[in-house]
Amino acid sequence: MTESVAAMDRASAPDRLSAYQARAEQALEARLPALTATPARLHAAMRYATLGAGKRIRPVLCYLAGDAVGVAASELDGPAAAVEMIHAYSLVHDDLPAMDDDDLRRGRPTTHRAFDEATAILAGDALQVLAFEVLATDPGMTRDPAARMEMVRILARASGTAGMAGGQALDLAAVGRRITVAEVEDMHRRKTGALIEASIMMAAASQPALPSPRRDALQRYGAALGLAFQIVDDLLDVEGDAATVGKPVRADAAADKPTFPAIAGIAAARSRAFALRDQAIAALAAFGPDADGLREVTHYIVERRQ
Amino acid sequence: MTESVAAMDRASAPDRLSAYQARAEQALEARLPALTATPARLHAAMRYATLGAGKRIRPVLCYLAGDAVGVAASELDGPAAAVEMIHAYSLVHDDLPAMDDDDLRRGRPTTHRAFDEATAILAGDALQVLAFEVLATDPGMTRDPAARMEMVRILARASGTAGMAGGQALDLAAVGRRITVAEVEDMHRRKTGALIEASIMMAAASQPALPSPRRDALQRYGAALGLAFQIVDDLLDVEGDAATVGKPVRADAAADKPTFPAIAGIAAARSRAFALRDQAIAALAAFGPDADGLREVTHYIVERRQ
Repeated sequence: MTESVAAMDRASAPDRLSAYQARAEQALEARLPALTATPARLHAAMRYATLGAGKRIRPVLCYLAGDAVGVAASELDGPAAAVEMIHAYSLVHDDLPAMDDDDLRRGRPTTHRAFDEATAILAGDALQVLAFEVLATDPGMTRDPAARMEMVRILARASGTAGMAGGQALDLAAVGRRITVAEVEDMHRRKTGALIEASIMMAAASQPALPSPRRDALQRYGAALGLAFQIVDDLLDVEGDAATVGKPVRADAAADKPTFPAIAGIAAARSRAFALRDQAIAALAAFGPDADGLREVTHYIVERRQ
Repeated sequence: MTESVAAMDRASAPDRLSAYQARAEQALEARLPALTATPARLHAAMRYATLGAGKRIRPVLCYLAGDAVGVAASELDGPAAAVEMIHAYSLVHDDLPAMDDDDLRRGRPTTHRAFDEATAILAGDALQVLAFEVLATDPGMTRDPAARMEMVRILARASGTAGMAGGQALDLAAVGRRITVAEVEDMHRRKTGALIEASIMMAAASQPALPSPRRDALQRYGAALGLAFQIVDDLLDVEGDAATVGKPVRADAAADKPTFPAIAGIAAARSRAFALRDQAIAALAAFGPDADGLREVTHYIVERRQ
């Protein structure tokens, strides 16, 4: 009996991930401006930059954290879409000629290649602010305005100079320069970790009854997972092949970007990622089976090949 | 007696405007990240783009609307700073080579000239999101989370594709094309009007006791003033001189940009601006002397020479 439940759990985990990926896609689709509305070209660029590709890791984490704390997915469609809009905007701007100058993203032309630079800049700007409009207005979300305000705080903080934008600035400033492992970790925590953590903490903010030790545990989980995610991304850039990864590989080395594997070595990077995975899983101990989805996605993120 | 009160009012009005301009400068200064914090260069660019220049029209409107509805300026430092951060970010991005490609702004090198393009893109991104972090966290603001949420909604809506970003997209799309007066008005209402209106409506949102006819009147005031503001800006581009205006003039015509004066003629543009000024003033009728500041700034905006 126990064995068959465990087997069912193993079988259902990938289904849960793909169900939440599909749910995230729908949540985004429903909240992006219509192609028929003016300005149509800007709306087309926003949709191009967001829909149809991407692993939806951040929305999936938001939904799975909802499972862990007892918040229904329907209450999290707004925050899940919002965090993915922030992520999508950051990719559009990071790919610009003045930034990383990438032509290919998720196997397709980058937004400024498919449209033009001005439209890409504006589409990024508009996606960022739409995320906050969604948090302020989405009808399915918690009706508690204090909880929604807390989500605005979490997402804004994770996106600004203490988070993602600050991490990208550190990344650009580090090109061609020798930096320490501590500096690369700080950069990664801001650039990628902050938004991963925000995905989880917005779900926590939707549950007013969550005891604060549980909240702290989720924060530790998110911080460990976020850093692991970026180290794995760097490893895939060194070890992966372009067809699997969906973007040019060896791009970091070509751009003389400092990465965890470049500074600490591949073996140390891999063992750091595994240690962070174990820390993340350990932080979930108190949640029991409600956090099985988070455990599953943690393995997926750290052990993925793309 | 009546005469001397009127004379005092005339004398005190410019003081009120400059006092609120100074207050806005301080509110911004206190809410921008410190130069000493990491990443220092990004923070320097954000401060450069925001402080030390600019008329602070939007924060001043926010404070003056507070006077009209009985909300203390100290409660509005957050929204006043937030709306100016959005305005400052939009100038940084609009000036980029891929957009309007301007080298000079407020008599100084534009942010991408003073720093570099990547830093300017990121500084704009970070200013936009800092505006929402301020609305979510500022300690001096109303403690009512529903009112703060409404401010997030107002500012986000005014900044996105239905507002400022959408207006800039329409502006870029209209270059070299013949458009109608209705189209140029729609573009102006989004590009400039939406944020002017938001400055006023955030103050209204801070006053829970405001009767809805008063709220509607302020909305009409803001809509009329916002459109008038942009028409006057276009007129100054045609008629002004660079030293007074602080940026290159005749730039719109040189860039083949459709403006109200270009489409309707200078005389029609001027009379439209005056008619909108009168509509704006008329919308304030019910407010009595509490709206004297708004009346004064309306004249200043429509009759300014820079």
